[in-house]
Amino acid sequence: MTAARDIEALIELMARLPGLGPRSARRAVLHLIRKRGQVMAPLAQAMADVAARARECAICGNICTADICDICADDRRATGEICVVEDVADLWAMERGQAYRGRYHVLGGTLSALDSIGPDELGIPRLVARVREENATEVILALNATVDGQTTAHYIADALQGTGVAVSSLAQGVPIGGELDYLDDGTIQAALRARRRL
Amino acid sequence: MTAARDIEALIELMARLPGLGPRSARRAVLHLIRKRGQVMAPLAQAMADVAARARECAICGNICTADICDICADDRRATGEICVVEDVADLWAMERGQAYRGRYHVLGGTLSALDSIGPDELGIPRLVARVREENATEVILALNATVDGQTTAHYIADALQGTGVAVSSLAQGVPIGGELDYLDDGTIQAALRARRRL
Ligand SMILES: [Zn+2]
Ligand SMILES: [Zn+2]
Repeated sequence: MTAARDIEALIELMARLPGLGPRSARRAVLHLIRKRGQVMAPLAQAMADVAARARECAICGNICTADICDICADDRRATGEICVVEDVADLWAMERGQAYRGRYHVLGGTLSALDSIGPDELGIPRLVARVREENATEVILALNATVDGQTTAHYIADALQGTGVAVSSLAQGVPIGGELDYLDDGTIQAALRARRRL
Repeated sequence: MTAARDIEALIELMARLPGLGPRSARRAVLHLIRKRGQVMAPLAQAMADVAARARECAICGNICTADICDICADDRRATGEICVVEDVADLWAMERGQAYRGRYHVLGGTLSALDSIGPDELGIPRLVARVREENATEVILALNATVDGQTTAHYIADALQGTGVAVSSLAQGVPIGGELDYLDDGTIQAALRARRRL
């Protein structure tokens, strides 16, 4: 132990964050302590608030601090389009692209027999029901261009047969093996524009 | 804005931490929200506690959560040796080396006419007085091997003349232009063992 016990405990908690190792966690904590009034206290408060209030949107699975997320609550986004993404990071990436104006369904993962993740865990029956209830016109499958992502996309396309909804997928621009959250905004815009029917 | 306003505000605060950019801040916040019970709430609490209680040790300038830091409060470390470091990150680096058992003086920077940082800002008169009061036997200058660090080291060595204290500096192992906080622990141990009189 090199710092006071409570400071050391804070460093250890910070070091568990993705993107921060022990060394950068120490630097971050030192930076915070130096700016404890202007930065550290507000950050702690913001974190406590979000920890207390964050939950999943009851409709789409997006993370929000109300029962229903800003996107589902926005009438202008009732376009009849539902974009299916693997997780919230991908939803955020789509939103940064500023090309999509419809709503979402966040799967929370991909189908995986090994991890016992089936259609129910991903809310796929709920998606199918929602497509019928909302009379959705198009479901855009914006899954990662990985084997798991594409297997899941095909499963969803099959599950949506019979609802009459058009099913499309992001196409041009998503590199093989690429993950949405790492793409630049222009690539996402191009992929959305060039989406193709399945 | 891609997430709820309060989540977006938290991401922006996190993105200002050294070592985290906007993208890794988003990933970190998403990770925290997914583990909001086990990780996020305790982290917020630890951060609020440290923000409220962190201060500088009245004796050495180390960061602590009491009036006097653990090192100054530890009688076994009253060895008569005072190690002078530029900042707390360097003190932590020395402590990780586990080779030094004395106490510290944290300068909080280096002499800089441009930034109006003089001897008073670095507590050098206080260090000289402390050397006399504590009858210190040795002052080890563990400053970075940079121009500013070495200029400051020479100033301190001059200021300590007349106190009779032995003044040494870390020698072997500190690479030219290198900064202590980036060195491996073994290098710091070697540099401490091979310290030379000035
Ligand atoms: Zn929603
Ligand atoms: Zn102290």
